[in-house]
Amino acid sequence: MGEDYIKMWENLGIDLENHDCLLKALAEFYQQIYLSQENRPEGMKYFDFVVSEAHGLRIKELLEAKQQGKKVVGVFCVYVPEEMIRAVDGICVGLCAGAQIGFEEAEKVLPKNTCDLIKAFIGFKLTQVCPYTESCDLLIGETTCDGKKKAYEILNKLTQKVYVMEVPHMKTERGRELFLKELFALKNKLEELSQQTMTLERFKEEVKVVNEKRKALMRLEKLRSYDPAPISGLDALLVNQIAFYDDPVRFTQKVNELCDELEERVKKGIGVKPKGTPRILITGCPFALPNWKLHHMIETSGAVVVGEESCIGRRYYHSLVPEDFSSIEEGIKLLAERYLKTPCACFTPNPERIEEIQNMAKELKAQGIVYYSIQFCTPYLFEAYQVESAVDLPFLKIDTNYSTEDIGQLKTRCEAFIETL
Amino acid sequence: MGEDYIKMWENLGIDLENHDCLLKALAEFYQQIYLSQENRPEGMKYFDFVVSEAHGLRIKELLEAKQQGKKVVGVFCVYVPEEMIRAVDGICVGLCAGAQIGFEEAEKVLPKNTCDLIKAFIGFKLTQVCPYTESCDLLIGETTCDGKKKAYEILNKLTQKVYVMEVPHMKTERGRELFLKELFALKNKLEELSQQTMTLERFKEEVKVVNEKRKALMRLEKLRSYDPAPISGLDALLVNQIAFYDDPVRFTQKVNELCDELEERVKKGIGVKPKGTPRILITGCPFALPNWKLHHMIETSGAVVVGEESCIGRRYYHSLVPEDFSSIEEGIKLLAERYLKTPCACFTPNPERIEEIQNMAKELKAQGIVYYSIQFCTPYLFEAYQVESAVDLPFLKIDTNYSTEDIGQLKTRCEAFIETL
Repeated sequence: MGEDYIKMWENLGIDLENHDCLLKALAEFYQQIYLSQENRPEGMKYFDFVVSEAHGLRIKELLEAKQQGKKVVGVFCVYVPEEMIRAVDGICVGLCAGAQIGFEEAEKVLPKNTCDLIKAFIGFKLTQVCPYTESCDLLIGETTCDGKKKAYEILNKLTQKVYVMEVPHMKTERGRELFLKELFALKNKLEELSQQTMTLERFKEEVKVVNEKRKALMRLEKLRSYDPAPISGLDALLVNQIAFYDDPVRFTQKVNELCDELEERVKKGIGVKPKGTPRILITGCPFALPNWKLHHMIETSGAVVVGEESCIGRRYYHSLVPEDFSSIEEGIKLLAERYLKTPCACFTPNPERIEEIQNMAKELKAQGIVYYSIQFCTPYLFEAYQVESAVDLPFLKIDTNYSTEDIGQLKTRCEAFIETL
Repeated sequence: MGEDYIKMWENLGIDLENHDCLLKALAEFYQQIYLSQENRPEGMKYFDFVVSEAHGLRIKELLEAKQQGKKVVGVFCVYVPEEMIRAVDGICVGLCAGAQIGFEEAEKVLPKNTCDLIKAFIGFKLTQVCPYTESCDLLIGETTCDGKKKAYEILNKLTQKVYVMEVPHMKTERGRELFLKELFALKNKLEELSQQTMTLERFKEEVKVVNEKRKALMRLEKLRSYDPAPISGLDALLVNQIAFYDDPVRFTQKVNELCDELEERVKKGIGVKPKGTPRILITGCPFALPNWKLHHMIETSGAVVVGEESCIGRRYYHSLVPEDFSSIEEGIKLLAERYLKTPCACFTPNPERIEEIQNMAKELKAQGIVYYSIQFCTPYLFEAYQVESAVDLPFLKIDTNYSTEDIGQLKTRCEAFIETL
């Protein structure tokens, strides 16, 4: 098995030495952060397995699918519709990266003041450690923020595989029309890539598949509203992260099985932490795998994270696409409407995000809000001021990066904050 | 006169104490940087006068125009067409700010890692020192970069006068359509503001007025191609900065008078510096008034600046709007095409900018390129890598802010660079 993987990675052009370092660090990190947690649900075993095989079995599946003519498409943003990729027999994988890998290389081609999420996906490429990136037939970028938008130019130089779709920055009628046209252009691009014509039947099927995934994640979120919380924020975060990599049908089934177990826990009053543990809602920047830093800090400081208003979180599963459309055009319109509901800080103005935070805080019975920004993320850093003045819960702003250097100091701040709740 | 101005500023809500500090600093700064230059053309006297009366006579003119029912419209970007503002009897003024004023206040509502241009226009507003901002009936923002886009939300909270137009980030057919629609929406907004309906005749007239201004600036740029350069980079920069504030008809006349004088100088071989002085092309971020730091450093280090590939520079006057249109719709289409030629780093991809830099370097006989970025300006910081690898001239990257703290160190770098030319 191990040797098969090495051959597979070699064939993908992975730098085995760098990759080995990454896998070892990841395994250690996972042991320390995840496996050390107490009272984990049984259902997390599947997700532990997925993590352990993230660069193994899942990549093998992708490569087998490619041999059957399927295309693997990498994305970096929740505005790129998985439904359309799947409707032409594609497989969608998230490529945002959450570890400080290849930063020295990345900083040779990126400004120093670039957020770590971008440095990481460029660093992963430059050091050839990501079998997902290397498996992709197409990388779909978007224009959500200045940093990613310009980084895709560099990524395209490195891969010659980047297609960029424009995401508008205003939800005017004109912005909506642009986005709709972008989805039609994306359809053409995907059909060209896959040499397939999208059919209504298949499109409807895939809308259902992705809706089911989102429903399962909504169900998981809802279960976190109970006190005691039946699952840790860390574990729920992991499930949300894996949503971007795993086969969606299998993933949905496993999330629902986990939720069945959590429902039992709720009935029995079983939680991961005692009833009355301070409850935190996190809002802000995405948490790309393996970015577990903030959740780990909060949950080892006496609180439980009950929700994420984040791309890895509610912004991914906030709503469904209506399934009763009768033409591809109609379906794409419904898709556009659904995706544009996502309240990303790249939009101006973006009052929907504040509403979402307020709703989530209420629904999940949060007692405090932690605002998370990745250093140099302009859109989320800017909105922090508006969010802080709009919410009436205790508020802590954490502006950090992927390094572990500031953990001591941040943990002290988290502990002090949690004590006040 | 002085007392009249004080009353005028008071009526505008200017904080007289803060404003007095600003004016004094500006006068001292101007003396030190501008008036100390040798061999200045006579024609610069007008521009010296404009600077000395920037907060006096010009504001008086604006207020008189307002009393006659004209509207004053503030803009922050060269993608907002002055032609349309003028066609409904409006007066267009640039509001980007180039001095470290009100930063302490600004940093209470903005992320620390915000570029100084944004901190300055928010700081100017928070400390009530800008009579232009206070004279405006409407402020037109745009979505060019993350920082400005989100800062307009804050500016709107402070003024309730901000209208944002979306500038696309890709020059696809779809992006072009969006921009065109944005211009039509802007027309509606301006007509609503001015209570005037734009007429074809007036629109054509104003297209000519602004074309004449741009022609004069092109003429000025061309004269800088001679060796010895007949005008300093500092003086040419000032003219370009004043283009955003002054009455365009008067301004054009004065620029042309200056150019007449410079032509005489060229004929006689008179320059501001000796023939053979190293020639620098600057490319990058805008230089809002009174941001003279880089030009001053370069020109006191033994070189002359011969051009600016910048919003305050070529990006403002790169091309004209065709004047032979026969409907407002046609005119707006031509306007959209012309404005979208501007090669701002907010676009992806943006190969036109590299071409522009190469053309300018050749046309202006530059021997070295200084790449200027305002700290934290993501789009221009990112493009620095691509520009550096595309140009075949000596290249110096200066990443700085509005403070004077780093001048010693930067000057040493400039001197070392210029010595190699």
